[in-house]
Amino acid sequence: MILYDYYRSSAAYRVRIAIALKGLVVERRPVHLLHGEQRDPGYRAKSPLAIVPTLQLDDGRVITQSLAIIDYLDALKPEPPLLPRDAVLAAQARATALSIACEIHPLANLRVIEALQRQFDAKDDQIAMWRRCWITEGLSAVEALIAPPAPFAFGAEPSLADICLIPQVYNARRFDVPLDDCPRILAVEAACAALPAFMEARPEAQPDAE
Amino acid sequence: MILYDYYRSSAAYRVRIAIALKGLVVERRPVHLLHGEQRDPGYRAKSPLAIVPTLQLDDGRVITQSLAIIDYLDALKPEPPLLPRDAVLAAQARATALSIACEIHPLANLRVIEALQRQFDAKDDQIAMWRRCWITEGLSAVEALIAPPAPFAFGAEPSLADICLIPQVYNARRFDVPLDDCPRILAVEAACAALPAFMEARPEAQPDAE
Repeated sequence: MILYDYYRSSAAYRVRIAIALKGLVVERRPVHLLHGEQRDPGYRAKSPLAIVPTLQLDDGRVITQSLAIIDYLDALKPEPPLLPRDAVLAAQARATALSIACEIHPLANLRVIEALQRQFDAKDDQIAMWRRCWITEGLSAVEALIAPPAPFAFGAEPSLADICLIPQVYNARRFDVPLDDCPRILAVEAACAALPAFMEARPEAQPDAE
Repeated sequence: MILYDYYRSSAAYRVRIAIALKGLVVERRPVHLLHGEQRDPGYRAKSPLAIVPTLQLDDGRVITQSLAIIDYLDALKPEPPLLPRDAVLAAQARATALSIACEIHPLANLRVIEALQRQFDAKDDQIAMWRRCWITEGLSAVEALIAPPAPFAFGAEPSLADICLIPQVYNARRFDVPLDDCPRILAVEAACAALPAFMEARPEAQPDAE
């Protein structure tokens, strides 16, 4: 399998954590987003939206979208499971992951920032404010959605919720969003930092990091 | 179970289709988004992001996020399944659903439109253009992601992909986005229109429709 990746993409970061938790071996090919490599026709044939990550299987078939890739990997290698066994807790962990993937991340990613510049002539300080608003509001909601850490967001093992939360916390720090009002998120972050899988997947640990 | 709903929310529309396909009986409570009912503290305690849909279970526990709710309902009542049995096709159907739920819908929903007005003083024609751009680009990518309809997006039975696609097509028509370049999407729309579950779930068939 080949993962089309970019070290700073928080969606790709989620998949890297899942791969490391599962102990899978996946070849990685960086797609440099700031150089526009995602818009190369060859890549766009795999990812029509010109985004990372994309997983290419050995038979050539392709799976896009980080959460779909992670569900596929979870089906391919069920241990350790990436969702709690209880169906309601599993749904709540998934809802937390989706709150990040649908309500925070897309609003502050490169496609949208470029559109704000193009259509509204957005300046750097306006973009910074736009980004910080969505991250602050979104993580404050996530703080309410997760259970008191035990020590992970939904129990004794990391789940899809932690897998999505840690890259979003990385982005919050990168863009100077304070997390003082999010003690549960900070506790989850500390628990994940103790696991090698989360450490290996960090942007700064990637070969294409700059 | 109680579904907190709004007739025109395309995320709630997805859940209504899933409920109808499964033949489940769920009490529905409308939350009038244009009247701001989603920001009432009572509702916000269930949905920290103040969005619909939210599913409340009989024991009081709550599940947010349409795709998490649909996965929960699929686990609760496995027939008919909402994903293809083949793991790769299932991941591709899920990726199509997520392309809509993460890359199209959040960029044009009420929270973001209000932020564009607040932060960039966006006028009605600019908002219309913003919305149309994301829907056009996103549905064009979905057209490339789905298989030739047979007759649904991923085979002979409707899946999560169709469940997310039909409400997004409804939004495209509502905002005058042409679909002439999307013959696969139009074929899927025609196949879904022949199923009572998709018809029952339409916004205009809801008791809170205006």
